[in-house]
Amino acid sequence: MEALQFYTRLVEEGLRNLEFPAKPEQLYEPQRYILRLGGKRIRPILTLLGTELFNTEAHIALPQALAIETFHNFTLIHDDIMDAAPLRRNQPTIHQKWNENVGILSGDALMIRAYQLLGQIHPSLLPDAFELFNTTALEVCEGQQMDMDFELRMDVSAAEYIEMIRLKTSVLLGCALELGAIVAGANKDDRDQLYEFGQQIGIAFQIQDDILDLYGDPEKFGKQIGGDVIANKKTLLFLTALNVASAEQREILKQLSTENDLALKVSRTRELFDHLNIRSICENRMGEHYNLAMLALTKVNVDPSKKKVLIQLADFLMERDN
Amino acid sequence: MEALQFYTRLVEEGLRNLEFPAKPEQLYEPQRYILRLGGKRIRPILTLLGTELFNTEAHIALPQALAIETFHNFTLIHDDIMDAAPLRRNQPTIHQKWNENVGILSGDALMIRAYQLLGQIHPSLLPDAFELFNTTALEVCEGQQMDMDFELRMDVSAAEYIEMIRLKTSVLLGCALELGAIVAGANKDDRDQLYEFGQQIGIAFQIQDDILDLYGDPEKFGKQIGGDVIANKKTLLFLTALNVASAEQREILKQLSTENDLALKVSRTRELFDHLNIRSICENRMGEHYNLAMLALTKVNVDPSKKKVLIQLADFLMERDN
Repeated sequence: MEALQFYTRLVEEGLRNLEFPAKPEQLYEPQRYILRLGGKRIRPILTLLGTELFNTEAHIALPQALAIETFHNFTLIHDDIMDAAPLRRNQPTIHQKWNENVGILSGDALMIRAYQLLGQIHPSLLPDAFELFNTTALEVCEGQQMDMDFELRMDVSAAEYIEMIRLKTSVLLGCALELGAIVAGANKDDRDQLYEFGQQIGIAFQIQDDILDLYGDPEKFGKQIGGDVIANKKTLLFLTALNVASAEQREILKQLSTENDLALKVSRTRELFDHLNIRSICENRMGEHYNLAMLALTKVNVDPSKKKVLIQLADFLMERDN
Repeated sequence: MEALQFYTRLVEEGLRNLEFPAKPEQLYEPQRYILRLGGKRIRPILTLLGTELFNTEAHIALPQALAIETFHNFTLIHDDIMDAAPLRRNQPTIHQKWNENVGILSGDALMIRAYQLLGQIHPSLLPDAFELFNTTALEVCEGQQMDMDFELRMDVSAAEYIEMIRLKTSVLLGCALELGAIVAGANKDDRDQLYEFGQQIGIAFQIQDDILDLYGDPEKFGKQIGGDVIANKKTLLFLTALNVASAEQREILKQLSTENDLALKVSRTRELFDHLNIRSICENRMGEHYNLAMLALTKVNVDPSKKKVLIQLADFLMERDN
């Protein structure tokens, strides 16, 4: 997205300039490695935009933007161990390239680095920034635990699922924006609304992600269509289907979970979802969260022209299959 | 140690009063579990003593004392995974009682909790406390990585070993004391000397630990004598022996590392160490660090009578086999 290039460059340059000691190599090299794997850098960009929204130059919040990005990467390192994921952005994960111990410890150190970056803030702003960051960090852990718990449960409700994605991924978007607002000295009301905007956009985005897995344009989505179905993942689509299905249809879903013909598994599941109107139920839900996000943004007391880039970013995130 | 009972009780009560949410259970129950396994609570007591030294009531620093103790317990959880340790204080380790994922994530969350406790400080003191805590936390990770690296190396020098134990364990003692001093509003010079006292006592204590493993009174030491020798651990005794041994004696040490008769392994190693005067070389080294600790303490500008309990605590730590 062109309007974001300036911010992306700022973040990439900031990441490149982060210095890591040469030794112990197995502690610091994995941190350099994961930060160089790339990514859209949405979270740190949100921090910069959150600052600029209140008439402060974006680069003032760069350390805090990098705190958000390093924290996010710490969670990726540990989550990849917990999920036994071999690849991250098409490259070997850290526990795969080195070993699990290296993943655990370099992840710990990267979290501490995030706190160090957070601390590069005007001392008078540190208490608020610190409290927000701590609360968010703990919520992200709660979300990850809920995600793992849900894998072993068959009775997860859609509401519980939304709460899980809110904690696991969305609060960090809210935190990223609010942190930028804190750096700019914004008042609590504006900060809260901006946080809410980020959080609700995050939820909408995750729901979108679930929908696109089955209904996205394969060329634009960049992933195998139906990957979640094949992996029997409890997405919002699946949980909603379980919720509205008849006993008989639930039995079909159960049988499909062990279907070995994967193309058939995906097409039959999709047929059933279509029959149950799952896509539009989920799209409605997504729309609700998108609308809550926009409502919160309108309540932020700055000139509407300043909000344009945030709306552009939100729409960029939400229209990935257009 | 009787003089410390007041502080021990304060810490234990503080730990008991820490509230953890009921859910997600696998995130919070392990944190409760490890904090209840007990221990001497030396680190948080140091924080309380660091505060009291500057005429401030100990309990004012309780949140920061608990921050140190929870951080320490976070390191225990993750270190136990990395060391594949089945037991901690004679109870199953968290990854053993639950699983590795639970250990990783509950450890992460406990580290964040430590930061939350740290933040319960007068806002004007937070920047200094935060910077000290971050630096120390990162050093502890470096020390743990060095410890793991050393297991795979045969050329570790005594100086490198001391640097490793300084980072892995001693800086946290220095940090604990300085944090207490920060809470009491002590000046930078006094804080630095108190940190140095804690750090040097920590090094002396760890050397003592190595010595006692082979030369301690089995009844008082409470562990199997020669455990480090049996496990081929690279203690300061072993590294010093390698350093002063002849080529022939090094060969004997190498052969002993694969000796299956464990009693023989311990007695032969001890004979060789005695021949090389290893115990007194290490005791001298320990004495040097103890003296550096005491020197630093004399430089702290408070009435000497206030320092008594710190000297008592140091001597209590150093004379465990008497």
